[in-house]
This record gives sequence, C-alpha cells and structure tokens, in this order.
Amino acid sequence: MLMDFYEMTMAHGYFTQHENTDRVAFDVFFRRNPDKGGFAIFGGLEQIVEYILNLHFDERDIDFLRAQGIFSEEFLAYLKDFSFTGDVYAFPEGSIIYPNEPVITIVAPLIDAQIVETAVLTMMNHQSLIATKANRIVRAADGRIVADFGARRAHNVDAAVYGARAAYIGGVQSTATVLAGQQFGISVSGTMAHSWVMYHDSEYEAFKAYAEVYPDGAVFLVDTYDVLNSGVPNAIKVAKDVLEPMGKRLKGIRLDSGDLAYLAKKARRMLDKAGLEDCKIMASNSLDEYTITSLLIQGGPIDIFGVGERLITSKSDPVFGAVYKIAGVEKNGVWEPRIKISESVEKITNPGFKKVYRVYNEKGRAIADLLTLLEEVPDTTEPYRYIDPEQPWRELYFENCTFKEMKQLIIKDGKLLVELPTLDELRQYVKDQLETEIWPEEQRFENPHRHYLDMSPGYYQMKMDLLNRIFRKK
Amino acid sequence: MLMDFYEMTMAHGYFTQHENTDRVAFDVFFRRNPDKGGFAIFGGLEQIVEYILNLHFDERDIDFLRAQGIFSEEFLAYLKDFSFTGDVYAFPEGSIIYPNEPVITIVAPLIDAQIVETAVLTMMNHQSLIATKANRIVRAADGRIVADFGARRAHNVDAAVYGARAAYIGGVQSTATVLAGQQFGISVSGTMAHSWVMYHDSEYEAFKAYAEVYPDGAVFLVDTYDVLNSGVPNAIKVAKDVLEPMGKRLKGIRLDSGDLAYLAKKARRMLDKAGLEDCKIMASNSLDEYTITSLLIQGGPIDIFGVGERLITSKSDPVFGAVYKIAGVEKNGVWEPRIKISESVEKITNPGFKKVYRVYNEKGRAIADLLTLLEEVPDTTEPYRYIDPEQPWRELYFENCTFKEMKQLIIKDGKLLVELPTLDELRQYVKDQLETEIWPEEQRFENPHRHYLDMSPGYYQMKMDLLNRIFRKK
Repeated sequence: MLMDFYEMTMAHGYFTQHENTDRVAFDVFFRRNPDKGGFAIFGGLEQIVEYILNLHFDERDIDFLRAQGIFSEEFLAYLKDFSFTGDVYAFPEGSIIYPNEPVITIVAPLIDAQIVETAVLTMMNHQSLIATKANRIVRAADGRIVADFGARRAHNVDAAVYGARAAYIGGVQSTATVLAGQQFGISVSGTMAHSWVMYHDSEYEAFKAYAEVYPDGAVFLVDTYDVLNSGVPNAIKVAKDVLEPMGKRLKGIRLDSGDLAYLAKKARRMLDKAGLEDCKIMASNSLDEYTITSLLIQGGPIDIFGVGERLITSKSDPVFGAVYKIAGVEKNGVWEPRIKISESVEKITNPGFKKVYRVYNEKGRAIADLLTLLEEVPDTTEPYRYIDPEQPWRELYFENCTFKEMKQLIIKDGKLLVELPTLDELRQYVKDQLETEIWPEEQRFENPHRHYLDMSPGYYQMKMDLLNRIFRKK
Repeated sequence: MLMDFYEMTMAHGYFTQHENTDRVAFDVFFRRNPDKGGFAIFGGLEQIVEYILNLHFDERDIDFLRAQGIFSEEFLAYLKDFSFTGDVYAFPEGSIIYPNEPVITIVAPLIDAQIVETAVLTMMNHQSLIATKANRIVRAADGRIVADFGARRAHNVDAAVYGARAAYIGGVQSTATVLAGQQFGISVSGTMAHSWVMYHDSEYEAFKAYAEVYPDGAVFLVDTYDVLNSGVPNAIKVAKDVLEPMGKRLKGIRLDSGDLAYLAKKARRMLDKAGLEDCKIMASNSLDEYTITSLLIQGGPIDIFGVGERLITSKSDPVFGAVYKIAGVEKNGVWEPRIKISESVEKITNPGFKKVYRVYNEKGRAIADLLTLLEEVPDTTEPYRYIDPEQPWRELYFENCTFKEMKQLIIKDGKLLVELPTLDELRQYVKDQLETEIWPEEQRFENPHRHYLDMSPGYYQMKMDLLNRIFRKK
C-alpha cells in the first residue's frame, strides 16, 4: 500500500474504462546528478524486486479502499487476486547512471505498471541518493576508512537501515546501525558515547573500565572535557597502565568536536611520542566530502572518518528526483511511442520502449551512453554512426568501440529470472566501474565532465518524427 | 535492533563493570530551530512510546550479537529477558519546543537508558523535522489547503509514512500516500498522472474518461501538452459536455509545471468566463514555504497546494539535530548532576534531572520557558525572580504569570500511564498553541523573535557551582 492514491484512482479508471490488456512501458530516469556531480550510483533494485514480487492486497487493504467510497466492487475483487504480471528491465544495481536514460523500464499491463510507480521511485530515489553521496565521501577520504554513523539523524528507521545498505554499496566500510548489520551483513562498529565518560567518576576511570572489557578494540572518545589536556593524556595513560601489561595496544582515539585538523595533528604527535604510532585517529562531527577534503588538505592525520547526518540525509542535496514516465503503449503487438512535451526543452522525455548501450573505447573507458530502438543491435565491425542530440548536424562515429546493453530483463511475467548479486558484489562492482571504466574527469567534484547521452540515427529520427507530428497537429 | 553498536558495547561494559542499579537521567534536546525559524514542533512521541514498550531481543538478535564475538554469555542471557524498566518524561507530542530544553527525559537503569538512545533520536528527529517544515508551509499557504505529495521523494517507506503523519500534525490537510491514510486515518487524496493523459488518444478523451468514472471528484491535470491552449480548454469542454449533463460540476484543475502564478491567473479567468467559478485551482511542483509565499505575493489564485519533495525531505534543512545527553546519575537516592563541557559555550549542556515550565503572561502568551531544579514549584502569588543566563547580572521578575510544567511522566517502570492523544487532537493542539499562545513574532520566517530559556535562581546556581568545581579541578 505504499502508493500514491492517484495510482488507485487511475487503476480503477483503467479497469472501468478499458480492458487491462494493453501493455505499456514506463521508464524510470532522473534528470540531474546530485551535488552537481558527474554521475549517480543506482541503488535500491533489490528492494524494488522484493516489493514487486510480493505485491498484493490483503483484506485490510481492500477494506480501507472500499471505505473511500469511490471504487467498484468488481475492481476491489480484481485487486484481491492481483499480483504483478509484467516484465522489469533494469540496469544492474550499483551501475553508474546518468541523467535522462531509462535505468528501469517496467513493461506490463496498464494497471500493473501504474500501481508500482511510487514504491519503485521511493526505493530507487532513496538508495541511489545515499549510495551516490556515500561514494562522494569515500572518494574524498582518498583511501582512508569511512564508517556510517547516521542512524539518529536518518528520516526514520528505513532511512537508517536502507541508507546504511546504500552507503555500503557506495563504498563505506562499516555501519554503526545494528539493524543494518543484522539485516544485510554489513560489519558493525562502535565505541563509546560521551555518556560513558560522563557516567564514570573520571575520564581515566571511564577509559580504564572500557579497556578492561574490550582490550582488543578500545577506541577512546577523547573530547568530553579537553582533548589535549585531558582526553589524549588519559588515553595514553590507560594504554600504558591497563593495555600494555595485558600485551595489548590501544586501537584508536576519536575526536568528535573542535578543530579536527589541529587536534588530530597535536594528538598524533602526543601518541607517537608515547610510542603509540599504531593508534588510529578517528574523526567525526558533521563530516561530508567537503569537510573531509578540507581536513586532508590541511594535513590532518586522520585514519578513519565517522560520517553521520550529512551522509544519511545527503544534507547538501537531499532529493534524488527519479521520475516514472510512460514511454510507449503496445497496441495489437506494435509499440507506439509516447512523449511528454514541456515548455522546458530539457523536460521533454525520450519516447518509446528503447535500449541503452554503454559505449567503451579500446581502453575500456565508458565514453558515452547510447539510446537505440528496441530492435537495433549496433554493428561493431565498422565505425558506428551516432547522433549527439544537442548537435544533430554533426556527423559522428564511434570507432573501435564496444557496446554493452545496460538494461537486463530481470522479471518476466511477474517471475524473477536472475539471482541478484550480494551486497559485497554490488560494492565491488561500483569500485570496479570507477577504477576502470569511468573517466576520472567525471569523478571530480568541481565541474565534472558531462557524460554524453547519444542516440542511434533511427532512434533520433523516431523522436523527431513524433515531435513534428505533435506540433503539426496543434 | 535500531541502535548504534556503541550502545551495545557500552551496555555490555556497564553490565560487566557495574551493577545495573544506578539510575541515570538522559535529556533529549535540540540546539537549533530548522530553517532559522522561531521554534520547532515536537513529533514522534507515539512512535517512541511504542518502541520503548515493545523493546526486546529475540533469538535472532541474540545470535547476531553473539556472532560479533565480544559479548559475554551472561550479558546475552540478560538481554534475552530484557524489557525497558525505566520512566519517561516528555512534553506532549505536538508541543511547540525550543532549543536547549529537555523535551524528553529518560530516567532508567543505565543499560535501559543507554540502549534506547538511537531509536528515540531517530523517531523524534524525523517527525519533528517534518512537522515543523509542514507547519511552515501551511503558515505560508495562509488558510489555503496544503496536501502532502511527497512519498516518491521520501527517504524510503517509513519516511513517507511517518512523514505524512508528521506533516498532518503540522497542519497539512491530506496525504497522497495510501499507506499513511490506512495506518493513521489521514484522509487521502489523488487525481491523475501525466501517464493517464498520455495513455489516452487525446487529452479530451483522457479527461472525459476520468469524468465518467469520477463525476464527483474530477481534478484534471492540465499541463501535459499546453496548459492554456489545450489543457484548460479541454477541461472546460469536458465540464460542459460530460459533467453538466449529469448535473455535476468540475471540482478542479491541477498545474504541475511552468510559471504557476501566471498560468493560474490565466486559467482562473478562462474558468470564470466559462461559468466555472467554483472550480478550484491546485498547484504542485517543488513547492515550499518560500515558493508559496512568492506565488501568493504575485496574486496567484491558487486554492490548493500539493507539496512533495521539499516537504517530505525538509529539503532546505534536512537535519533535525536532537541529541541524547546524560544529565544526572542517582547515587544512593541522591541525583548528582552531570554536565558536558565544550569549547563552544553554546554546546555546554544544562545539567541535572530538571523541570521545564512554560511561562504565560496574563493574556495567555508564552513569554519564556524556565528550567528549575526537580523539587522547585514556582510560587505564583508574588513576582517570580528568574535568571536570564545570558545576562545573569539583571534582576528580573515574572509578574502576573502562570506556569505550566511541560514534561509529563508518561511511562513509569516500563508501563504506559496515559492515553496518547489521537492524531486529530495533536493537529488541533498545534493549531491552538499557534493561535493563542505563541507570539506571532516567533512565527514569522525572517528574523523571528528568539524565545527565552530562563532559569530559576536555584537551578542557575547549581549549574554555576558545577562549572566552577570542574574548572577548579583542572
């Protein structure tokens, strides 16, 4: 029942006015990379698949809908036996994705396609948003560890749990959120709060008690009273008094306030002087890709970043705007394209049930994505003529390129066809794409290169014909 | 299991190192009003109460924790039988709240108090954020209807559903999210998507089909092709051709793109000219309190605002930063205050297990909030001497004022003492406070008046003594 009410009113309308026999194709795409970045990361597909496979209406749902007083009993009876009978095509989860290309295409009877709209968007929007943000933060951390500390500032429980999942796909190392660890097998981490220190009679007592319980994993929070005059000295003292006699080393200290670059440098020197060169410094407190970049430019010797609210809400850009637009209607076995016109040219949709290819040069770099008609298979034995829709007058060719079709049929007639990858596979897939396929120029934060979305000549012609027809009609 | 892992490591530490007999008091408070506003609205309490009353660890939870390899079997056995045994004091849900005052105080054995931290914060942060944002938008709409359209851009399912609940508390009229309607009894609303129009062979056919199914509630989306040349004329035509012969009136049209103020004015004139003066105009598309204010200043004749992404993510300020800080420890029946020191003066906590009074003048306006020691009851028979902690040198009195204690004991020894209000009561409570108690000067968007948080002389003295003692110690 996670749907917008209009999906129900429309479904009932379709049910009443039409036979639910026409199949339609809906594309899911987004228009703008978050944070003015060069790309996004596709997250949420597993959750979408689970939703679609389990979609049904139970007695309570039917009763609730009946109580609205606008739905016919025939329609309610139909819903009672409803299950999704359509097909789902999608990019693999974890794919690098770009604006205006269909990342998911739902091909299904009208009603089936209409009522999954909101859930598909919500799940994709949320997880893609957080995976993309997490990856930006991980890139800024430049090889250092990033841990998710976001649960308490997440937009409720699912946002914490699925957000942790998405952050892991994006490259975060661990989460503090126990439920996410339990549900997805992400490694959980956590140390102590200020309350641990404040509960005890002194900071030294607090660290000592913690070291006695966790001699192997002690990370002391050193900013409760005074980092340099109390926190770090007490941490060193407990390392010497308590841990060393047990043959243990202090694992780390955590800074959670103040001037993190300055404090980390001072603390590093104090730790090193005490022979604790292997003690890690962890920093937290409203971090994101921008503050982490700044800390590293300042030479802050920080080994681990605990990132919370700015990751789990994608604070600097908290809306991922994927939309769900009808692209085609199948009438008597023939797909008719549909296009959404807008006064803003960039909001005109790419019509038709179509394919997306990623085009790689001979070094394996993804140089463009390409929209084609459904029946087209690029011939790679010779230079491939394509259209840049922003400069259709140019005669352009892909030479010595390979083409990978990005959308895969994963659900057919309501049945899952494939085994979905594990979370670690998704995380590795993101890493591999960024290391080998995606230009570094698309990965920088400032004015990244804009990935091309080109069209096959046939596809471009179809779109132009459609636009001409519509504007002639008027 | 919605908790940060450190709550478990600390709980285990407390279990191992101490007897779980000391009771502690944790305060939940926030430091900054969202969007530079004058106040926030407290949401999420019902969800917190449900969480606390149901908190337990099942076999799978215990197995997951055991697999972490750091918890003793004694502790795991203890968790197996765990239930929350403490007390919860809280402001009524829907209360207007201000920075740095304890909105919730958890008084419980150490472990009980520690492990509810994250869930309490997540639920309060999310719902308070959205209730506050929704109320800003409702205030901007100045009596016009606001509907929640946010689900697809919410941070996953809970964010959509509990966000709709919070938005309703904040004053929104209805939600498009069916699951929220079902779960909380909020009235649901919804019309049609562009896909309805695009599926049909023409816009006229689409409107006609919809009017035939919903003669009483037809709201036509008029911007699929061209608002003024196609959408509004087709809407009028269907009102005449289809609805009027049935004795029905067209309920409304919806604008979802373009220059909303301009289009609404033009559309209004066309509708009026056609005798459809009672047809409402609804607008949507990235609206929030700022765009709505601008539309109304321009004289846009809009009756209903559909608000989505900027409401459900609180886009302009998506983090509500309530924190959970230890305020006191009960030793042998005596409460010892605890304070968190910080180099930033505004981050020094208000120590001790304490009370909050709201102070009203003779006209019933809330002129300040007041922190007192636990045992203090203000004597209202004579002027009440209080301290403004920012100007402690001034001799200040509340005269002819009444005092309302804001925190109520709602859970005692793990049992719920009170009946929680209905959602409609919460919404009315918000409305009543804003109409009668809260200064208009605190409700404006630009430079709102800052509500005072004063202290009783006894409370102020306690805090100063504590600070002196700490800084003397060093």
